[in-house]
Amino acid sequence: MIETRPELENLSDYVPGKSIEEICEQYGLKNAVKLASNENPLGPSKKACEAYTNIVNTLHLYPRGNAPHLISALANKFHVNSDQIVIGNGSDEIIDMVGKAYFRPGDEIIGIRPTFSVYKATALLFGAKFISVEETENRPNLDAYIQAITPKTRAIFICNPNNPTGYYYTESEILEFLSKVPQNILVFIDEAYSEFATAKDYPKLLSQLEKFPNLMLNRTFSKIYGLAGVRVGYAFSSSEVIKALWKVKPPFDVNLAAQAAAEAALSDDDHIQKTLDMNNAGNAQLTEAFTNLGYKVLPTQANFICVHIGEKCSEFVKFLEQNGMIIRYLKSFGMPEWVRITIGQPKENQLLIDLATKWTNA
Amino acid sequence: MIETRPELENLSDYVPGKSIEEICEQYGLKNAVKLASNENPLGPSKKACEAYTNIVNTLHLYPRGNAPHLISALANKFHVNSDQIVIGNGSDEIIDMVGKAYFRPGDEIIGIRPTFSVYKATALLFGAKFISVEETENRPNLDAYIQAITPKTRAIFICNPNNPTGYYYTESEILEFLSKVPQNILVFIDEAYSEFATAKDYPKLLSQLEKFPNLMLNRTFSKIYGLAGVRVGYAFSSSEVIKALWKVKPPFDVNLAAQAAAEAALSDDDHIQKTLDMNNAGNAQLTEAFTNLGYKVLPTQANFICVHIGEKCSEFVKFLEQNGMIIRYLKSFGMPEWVRITIGQPKENQLLIDLATKWTNA
Repeated sequence: MIETRPELENLSDYVPGKSIEEICEQYGLKNAVKLASNENPLGPSKKACEAYTNIVNTLHLYPRGNAPHLISALANKFHVNSDQIVIGNGSDEIIDMVGKAYFRPGDEIIGIRPTFSVYKATALLFGAKFISVEETENRPNLDAYIQAITPKTRAIFICNPNNPTGYYYTESEILEFLSKVPQNILVFIDEAYSEFATAKDYPKLLSQLEKFPNLMLNRTFSKIYGLAGVRVGYAFSSSEVIKALWKVKPPFDVNLAAQAAAEAALSDDDHIQKTLDMNNAGNAQLTEAFTNLGYKVLPTQANFICVHIGEKCSEFVKFLEQNGMIIRYLKSFGMPEWVRITIGQPKENQLLIDLATKWTNA
Repeated sequence: MIETRPELENLSDYVPGKSIEEICEQYGLKNAVKLASNENPLGPSKKACEAYTNIVNTLHLYPRGNAPHLISALANKFHVNSDQIVIGNGSDEIIDMVGKAYFRPGDEIIGIRPTFSVYKATALLFGAKFISVEETENRPNLDAYIQAITPKTRAIFICNPNNPTGYYYTESEILEFLSKVPQNILVFIDEAYSEFATAKDYPKLLSQLEKFPNLMLNRTFSKIYGLAGVRVGYAFSSSEVIKALWKVKPPFDVNLAAQAAAEAALSDDDHIQKTLDMNNAGNAQLTEAFTNLGYKVLPTQANFICVHIGEKCSEFVKFLEQNGMIIRYLKSFGMPEWVRITIGQPKENQLLIDLATKWTNA
């Protein structure tokens, strides 16, 4: 018996969305629609697919650890220096690198409940304490985060727009917040869904990196770029923070296909615009339909909506699954009466609306 | 200024082999041959390439974290229970998971010098001490590891065959060793190169997993399977150890392309056999030539040879690079007079031999 680290006792297993394959097996279905993991319903960009296929004969070669082409494409697109960029095997790994570079036992990491579960899991894995600012559907004022700061605070995680609620903080709110946070505390703003935000006051923070060296902006290729399958996350910060992350970054973590596909996807403006247009239309379609059915729908700046179903929520989710429709039940987020629905293609949304109507009127 | 973990001060940067692209840029060459990173010179298996290409339209979907098809294919091929298998984003990540599950400050981790550098880096990252059993070209008796054990020892890493020296421990040596190691110490045997071993007494340890629940056998798709680019490592151990690793395993770390390509490569016996035949012939070709040139060549059970060049070793490596030939200089392994040469295709080997002959006779 080999003694495990005591930190493992506090870790709960990540609860992923169910796959189409799983649901088909479970209920004997031929196919299913998945609106559960905030994937891009248009699929990957064609440019990315081409780049992916083009490298098939080089799969025996190690990827270049410093990913010079992808880093340079990111630097060009976002007008940021190369030494202010880090990439990872999905954003999950970037969060892991933050833990490896900064978190130690006794540290306090501030976040919110509910939000993306990996922030808390990473804090606990490195022996730090996760301090939750509490909310459910209502967005707390950012002062609630400031009040939670103690001399032990090492980092603050803000998901903006937030997963799974979809709300956002405005640029002026974030800037005021940043000016109040001591600069020895890392402010990790996860902008995984930022490309979907349509609000005029949604923050543009890249220009603030110089003023706030403790600011880190996290992005991903898994959402609007439609590349969740190949795993690439990226983040911007001061060169000081980025250097610490590269120090703990595994040398070959971002695979060859990911580097090639991500670089190509970055310049596929057509695919990005189509995705945005579809998302805006689908948001209106779903929000209207669920509101008309009598459910509370939270306003969203992301590619999903958060809906209050009520006490029978788990039955609703099961009914949908039996009928080949997978959405995300939010019990594991601490919201047992709520679901998160990825905005899909019009037909997919309509199928969900029809099923929801049938269940509601049954 | 955000204070980094003190562990970072002891970490040195990983020194990867140089890429063909880098060398071509550096020396203004049109092409180069790389015999530096122990990649499969035949390339990826065709079956793997087919599986890789087939999933191109699903790149927007998250991979299934539990990789049921790959795990099941591994269980079938190696006659091991599914709960005795873990996979990772390359073996590098499996070693990281070992650190996350088991290593804490004050622990001692035993390895050898020289060997694969990630064992030590991972120990240091988690605040543990790395205790090196010293050698250069001569393989120490496994008793040297036993003598290094203290009450603080948490794990022992053995790379078999060893990278970069190519020597191996026999089955009876390993079994005697395992019987002497207390079962609260993890014995991590890295068999990344095991498929190349031709020695009759090279250990077959899968059948020992039941007797030694502290034994872990690590394998990879990066070497004989020719899939270094997509990143998949896998490991076998007792269900107890494997459970601890899944507890710290990131949910979506092994990408979609990796899962598909690896599963297909597992059954490509033809590609494996061709690779083996080529490796055996190339080993003979290179060993004979370098021996005839007057260099000491260590006997190998892997897909590389380790050659003593002498005081002018760095000049030799530079001469080769200028002529479009990349091999691995072993200074970063603590062997400044040695090189590691990946066994290539016959023509590639001959090109290297011709260049080495030219340099030696100059």
